[in-house]
Amino acid sequence: MSNTDFAHILTRTVDELSDPASLKGLFHQHREGNPLPSGKVLEEIIDLSRSIIFPGYFGKSSVNTRTIRYHIGVNIERLHKLLTDQIMAGLCFTCPKTGEPCTGACANKAETISLQLVGRLPQIRSTLATDVEAAYNGDPAAQSYGEIISCYPVIKALVNYRIAHELHTLGVPLIPRIISEMAHSETGIDIHPAAQIGHHFTIDHGTGVVIGATCIIGNNVKLYQGVTLGAKSFPLDENGNPIKGIARHPILEDDVIVYSNATVLGRITIGRGCIIGANIWVTEDMKPNTKKYKKE
Amino acid sequence: MSNTDFAHILTRTVDELSDPASLKGLFHQHREGNPLPSGKVLEEIIDLSRSIIFPGYFGKSSVNTRTIRYHIGVNIERLHKLLTDQIMAGLCFTCPKTGEPCTGACANKAETISLQLVGRLPQIRSTLATDVEAAYNGDPAAQSYGEIISCYPVIKALVNYRIAHELHTLGVPLIPRIISEMAHSETGIDIHPAAQIGHHFTIDHGTGVVIGATCIIGNNVKLYQGVTLGAKSFPLDENGNPIKGIARHPILEDDVIVYSNATVLGRITIGRGCIIGANIWVTEDMKPNTKKYKKE
Amino acid sequence: MSNTDFAHILTRTVDELSDPASLKGLFHQHREGNPLPSGKVLEEIIDLSRSIIFPGYFGKSSVNTRTIRYHIGVNIERLHKLLTDQIMAGLCFTCPKTGEPCTGACANKAETISLQLVGRLPQIRSTLATDVEAAYNGDPAAQSYGEIISCYPVIKALVNYRIAHELHTLGVPLIPRIISEMAHSETGIDIHPAAQIGHHFTIDHGTGVVIGATCIIGNNVKLYQGVTLGAKSFPLDENGNPIKGIARHPILEDDVIVYSNATVLGRITIGRGCIIGANIWVTEDMKPNTKKYKKE
Amino acid sequence: MSNTDFAHILTRTVDELSDPASLKGLFHQHREGNPLPSGKVLEEIIDLSRSIIFPGYFGKSSVNTRTIRYHIGVNIERLHKLLTDQIMAGLCFTCPKTGEPCTGACANKAETISLQLVGRLPQIRSTLATDVEAAYNGDPAAQSYGEIISCYPVIKALVNYRIAHELHTLGVPLIPRIISEMAHSETGIDIHPAAQIGHHFTIDHGTGVVIGATCIIGNNVKLYQGVTLGAKSFPLDENGNPIKGIARHPILEDDVIVYSNATVLGRITIGRGCIIGANIWVTEDMKPNTKKYKKE
Amino acid sequence: MSNTDFAHILTRTVDELSDPASLKGLFHQHREGNPLPSGKVLEEIIDLSRSIIFPGYFGKSSVNTRTIRYHIGVNIERLHKLLTDQIMAGLCFTCPKTGEPCTGACANKAETISLQLVGRLPQIRSTLATDVEAAYNGDPAAQSYGEIISCYPVIKALVNYRIAHELHTLGVPLIPRIISEMAHSETGIDIHPAAQIGHHFTIDHGTGVVIGATCIIGNNVKLYQGVTLGAKSFPLDENGNPIKGIARHPILEDDVIVYSNATVLGRITIGRGCIIGANIWVTEDMKPNTKKYKKE
Amino acid sequence: MSNTDFAHILTRTVDELSDPASLKGLFHQHREGNPLPSGKVLEEIIDLSRSIIFPGYFGKSSVNTRTIRYHIGVNIERLHKLLTDQIMAGLCFTCPKTGEPCTGACANKAETISLQLVGRLPQIRSTLATDVEAAYNGDPAAQSYGEIISCYPVIKALVNYRIAHELHTLGVPLIPRIISEMAHSETGIDIHPAAQIGHHFTIDHGTGVVIGATCIIGNNVKLYQGVTLGAKSFPLDENGNPIKGIARHPILEDDVIVYSNATVLGRITIGRGCIIGANIWVTEDMKPNTKKYKKE
Repeated sequence: MSNTDFAHILTRTVDELSDPASLKGLFHQHREGNPLPSGKVLEEIIDLSRSIIFPGYFGKSSVNTRTIRYHIGVNIERLHKLLTDQIMAGLCFTCPKTGEPCTGACANKAETISLQLVGRLPQIRSTLATDVEAAYNGDPAAQSYGEIISCYPVIKALVNYRIAHELHTLGVPLIPRIISEMAHSETGIDIHPAAQIGHHFTIDHGTGVVIGATCIIGNNVKLYQGVTLGAKSFPLDENGNPIKGIARHPILEDDVIVYSNATVLGRITIGRGCIIGANIWVTEDMKPNTKKYKKE
Repeated sequence: MSNTDFAHILTRTVDELSDPASLKGLFHQHREGNPLPSGKVLEEIIDLSRSIIFPGYFGKSSVNTRTIRYHIGVNIERLHKLLTDQIMAGLCFTCPKTGEPCTGACANKAETISLQLVGRLPQIRSTLATDVEAAYNGDPAAQSYGEIISCYPVIKALVNYRIAHELHTLGVPLIPRIISEMAHSETGIDIHPAAQIGHHFTIDHGTGVVIGATCIIGNNVKLYQGVTLGAKSFPLDENGNPIKGIARHPILEDDVIVYSNATVLGRITIGRGCIIGANIWVTEDMKPNTKKYKKE
Repeated sequence: MSNTDFAHILTRTVDELSDPASLKGLFHQHREGNPLPSGKVLEEIIDLSRSIIFPGYFGKSSVNTRTIRYHIGVNIERLHKLLTDQIMAGLCFTCPKTGEPCTGACANKAETISLQLVGRLPQIRSTLATDVEAAYNGDPAAQSYGEIISCYPVIKALVNYRIAHELHTLGVPLIPRIISEMAHSETGIDIHPAAQIGHHFTIDHGTGVVIGATCIIGNNVKLYQGVTLGAKSFPLDENGNPIKGIARHPILEDDVIVYSNATVLGRITIGRGCIIGANIWVTEDMKPNTKKYKKE
Repeated sequence: MSNTDFAHILTRTVDELSDPASLKGLFHQHREGNPLPSGKVLEEIIDLSRSIIFPGYFGKSSVNTRTIRYHIGVNIERLHKLLTDQIMAGLCFTCPKTGEPCTGACANKAETISLQLVGRLPQIRSTLATDVEAAYNGDPAAQSYGEIISCYPVIKALVNYRIAHELHTLGVPLIPRIISEMAHSETGIDIHPAAQIGHHFTIDHGTGVVIGATCIIGNNVKLYQGVTLGAKSFPLDENGNPIKGIARHPILEDDVIVYSNATVLGRITIGRGCIIGANIWVTEDMKPNTKKYKKE
Repeated sequence: MSNTDFAHILTRTVDELSDPASLKGLFHQHREGNPLPSGKVLEEIIDLSRSIIFPGYFGKSSVNTRTIRYHIGVNIERLHKLLTDQIMAGLCFTCPKTGEPCTGACANKAETISLQLVGRLPQIRSTLATDVEAAYNGDPAAQSYGEIISCYPVIKALVNYRIAHELHTLGVPLIPRIISEMAHSETGIDIHPAAQIGHHFTIDHGTGVVIGATCIIGNNVKLYQGVTLGAKSFPLDENGNPIKGIARHPILEDDVIVYSNATVLGRITIGRGCIIGANIWVTEDMKPNTKKYKKE
Repeated sequence: MSNTDFAHILTRTVDELSDPASLKGLFHQHREGNPLPSGKVLEEIIDLSRSIIFPGYFGKSSVNTRTIRYHIGVNIERLHKLLTDQIMAGLCFTCPKTGEPCTGACANKAETISLQLVGRLPQIRSTLATDVEAAYNGDPAAQSYGEIISCYPVIKALVNYRIAHELHTLGVPLIPRIISEMAHSETGIDIHPAAQIGHHFTIDHGTGVVIGATCIIGNNVKLYQGVTLGAKSFPLDENGNPIKGIARHPILEDDVIVYSNATVLGRITIGRGCIIGANIWVTEDMKPNTKKYKKE
């Protein structure tokens, strides 16, 4: 191929790809000073959160009782700073495009929400402590809490979920979804940040689990790999598109167990203490303390 | 353990592991100047492609209308260079081993294919734009196109697939498979680069989806997590090994929906507008506009 | 928000999170000189192992017959050093906390085990060679052994499993689990390091596969994506918690095939040559050479 | 040493070092949003400037005539962004501490100055082109302009100086000094950014050269290593400290040559065409076209 | 060149370079567990020290009064840990080679010395504060203490010197020299760690300054670039080699000034308040308050 | 400043800087496949050379007698590969620009030269061993050969010089100069790669030393900091520019000592055993065993 041909194709392709018509809806224009949320910074935020919640298990710090306050202080400060920036980026991502950088109001809002999240960390830690306990009690192969904390995927997924859920509750757009997709990619567990989940929650193995946005899950619930808590169908609007925002995923009351690859669909209620067997398809309410297994 | 014992075991192990007999079939001998395909460079290639296709969403660039042409120009040039090297590595990986470095013919071929791929990027972008639309319309929880582009795993998987598919079509060995396995690892979605997939394609959640090499998928098709479009069985050759290259995966016509964990096997045709329910096992043709649900 | 409020919330949160009561069971106190196992170093250990077992396919080395002994020598030495440190970290993680650093006895034990693992690498390579062969024969889409080695997830999972299993057998705590979870995250294949698996083993696609700790798998066995080899239920102790250490997962004899998303539960025996169809739930023994498919 | 002693010393030292009295004048308190100038970012700024001024010699870009405009466009945009942030940091570093973050006025000023600097780059390049020519003509060992640009320390020092000088002229505090000290550390050539230097300037070898803040240097001047253009003495104020801001360094008119290790001190004028020999000490005016050598 | 020739030359060269005879005196054999001092870690140690001594000026921390104690606590702990390892490496480097790893005695000694150094940091900071003051007062071009701290090479050189000197005083081998050579490379100022230097010491510009091992320098002393405080000649032993350890460098009493490129040689005493002019060669005692200038 | 003004200035500046007229002589156009020499790769080359010549002192390897051959083998192979690429880059940098990539002849030449350099490493090591000995014997402050090797700047400068000199002798353009400038920047010692230097050569402290391209230095020569071995004047051609390639720097015979800041200029001969005092200016031959000191 001659250099001239090469230059021609290169230039033409650049022109086509820079053409505004080709970019419609696919191009995120940055306004000065309003950067996009950063996956890399959000990873650091999650790493910091893990270091704060489970000191000594994550990060390179060799924390001990002499120095734990120093470490938590530094980590909290950095978490607050990074989180403020990312929340700001999330707010700017979705606020109406007027061609001007976001005003100070957005920055203040971001800082306030970030501080609120920081203030909720002690509560998040104490809920996660119940999740560690549940994972340990639920797996005969587990040797210690330390093993659960340092290598069980469910704990990684739940740290992300519990933080993402708080951010969602505080009204932050986009960021919670990115955080939950990070855990999805790492663990194969896909929990929507809007889902509500009680304490002592655990998932064994985890790959393929899906928990939809309007799920409500009680305490002491246990899921196995491949379980879907999904929507059965969604009402369509006049254009044939799904209507957004309708409750469409299951409610699981306390003490429910769902075995591997079961699919539970629609706004149904699985009563307290129910057990759903593997590879089952459930689309109707189950009364408390009932069991449903595959007939085979 | 004495130092002498240590040295003995170490030396013996190095000897055993360097023994040509032990290495048969497991050792990739490099000829000078013919490096192996690099996972790290292929990741950069995918990152560049994402930056070019969805400007402003990926990479660290703060692109805007003033500067988009500069950014796309630089990225296209770098993409072309890196891709040429990797295609060359793929060609060399599979060409007959004669002990000599590949001749210039291979290098010219690599550069030409790389340029052809670059020239197809505008078309790839416009197909991916339909996939973004399909993902948005198909998920009541989605808030904006931006959210789809920046965090939905299906889009990550499809960018890789659509590029890998073009490279496969252009006759590049190995590289397309590595690119599709990168997406598989990141998203749990395993699409063989040889599969053919129409526009407005989407996958919800995605973990566990498998789309085999000889699948043909129409337009406006939607899959859910855990769906397998696989082979039922393969004819064996006289040695009892599967015969390579036979059409053995399903054909899905336009507007088909397959719900979670359904398994569709063999060279069957699922007609236009069919719906396949969750956890179903389908091994026979379905007429257009029919539905198949689990009986439970 | 005023600076005073900010400082107040920050300080209060640091205090709460540093409170020993809040940390009970969640805080890994480091003793001087006894660092935690490091995910990053374990990744380097796996990368080194891949480089040693499949020379030329992994790492940045451009090894050839002239220089292979140099490369294997350097890699073996580094592997031994890093592994000794990590085994030591694993031993210290679980040994009783007396407030003193581990004595030299632990260090000697770590070095000996590390050397034993190194000495077993030739055998590990030769078993993995059979796995490569099985993957190639089992997939009509595979073009070459090289393609299998460089991009099939099953090989990545099995390198980790076969090393983790040896470490488990040698009595190393924690480290084997971290190594297997690394493969789980990368491939979606979750193989417990305590499971026993014969030669010529392969898994197609792999996402969602679970192989429990007490599984025993023969030679020439093939699994598809989403297969669970799990426990049916576990006996509880007087406190209602599962009793640890009981054989509770299936035995698969030689030449068994299990298709996608099948679930095999409990300490049952699947006889030699059995075939289990997709999406099946199996909880009872199967006689040799029997087949079980979904009735649909 | 007991753990108690250790903890005691550690805690006491932290207390002493955190004591405000001990920190007086040594502690740079950050106000939120007003980061310190960053050496690392300033290095990237210099690297970008080198890439823009001498395309193809620096950075990893493989620029050519087809793509140079793309590269310069991307680099200019990034330079402007990074420089705006650093100028802002410089302005904030020196503005009066009122406990509040800098207002938007500072940000606007930073952006304007940054853009002015960008607008002067063509002129800076054309002056540096004369410096390259002077270095080439002045060194019999030089083989090509390319060699001068890619490895002569004088060019590195002059790129930094000519940019730092523009920033100084535009009223930016601190940043110019950091940029000139970066060159000082790399090359041993210490040029104060406030000095004024004409075109076709060169320094051979360079280590130990010092050019003071109020120097005025004409065109076609050449210095050798170890030359000091310094102050002889400075008037003291009533406290015995030097009075700041007085012209105290030499004026070198056009076509002057100063050989190695010569020391020229005070506000004297070295006339056009003068030559100063090695290891000389000059503290008085020299008439044009005179020479001064060591008497030995 | 044929592959055979290549392999021959390569192998022969490796053999020659591995030959113990060729390695005599040039080969540092590592004993297990006794690593060499690491330049990279020592750089981190210096960066940490700068961060602790001048909070907010170095490192990426955005420390403020709210959080300074947390930052200093974390930095002190890390400094202590890294320094203990490096001191241990220094002790092992020089202790007699018996083929066995160093015993615990060395480790204890390293930890004790490291803690002693940490305990002296408040005093080191307060001496450096006087050096900052001296640099500010001595340079009419300096705008603020902040400018001195963040970019004057003398401060970088003195942080290294004052730490290296303490380590030297505490009996640590090798490490102090490496630290002082790091400053030498960065600033061109070469201060031997064994030299003794009072408070309010400064050096202007600095490149080329040499301060020998047995120098004794009083308070309020100022040097300019290129000044050598060196040895005149050294007594030789019976083999014609210099005898080590003899006092051979100058004593400078309080308030001495030495101008650029002056050379002061031998164990002479420069009395309080003396001034030595530029490019002078001084080899004899100077009485207090005398001046010596070049006669030209 | 309005966005329009901004865009205008940005665009205009990009245009000006991309204008071929503005780029004349300053723009290095890359031909495909002919990259520029890389400072970063050359640094790795020097690091590798240091690791090979002084095993155990540089790099992160923990080499010992058991494993030294493996390490040297791997390092030699990598050195050869990187060096071949860089020599190729140097050859392409200077060969006539015909618009086509360099042919295979250049590549073969680069590989041959690289191998020749590798084959000379044993001789380079043995000369450097004499330099280490000279540095140790010449400095009463030196404690061990190990200290000399690991931190004396003269050794760093001489490793670079002795390699650069061999490359220069083998006809490689540009690369030797870049290597010597790397040492110049790190140590302040500027040795032209074309200079000829005997064994047992040392430089004390080193900052500011300049050794010109046509210098010839015998054995057992010692220089101190700030010494210039330079050209006195150069004959000009008809255009008034220096004529390149004329012998113009001093010859120092065996056993010469030159003290700090002395300047020796022109093609003169300093006879065997001469001593030149500090701050001296020498421009005429000195007979063997004469001394010249400053008259003061």
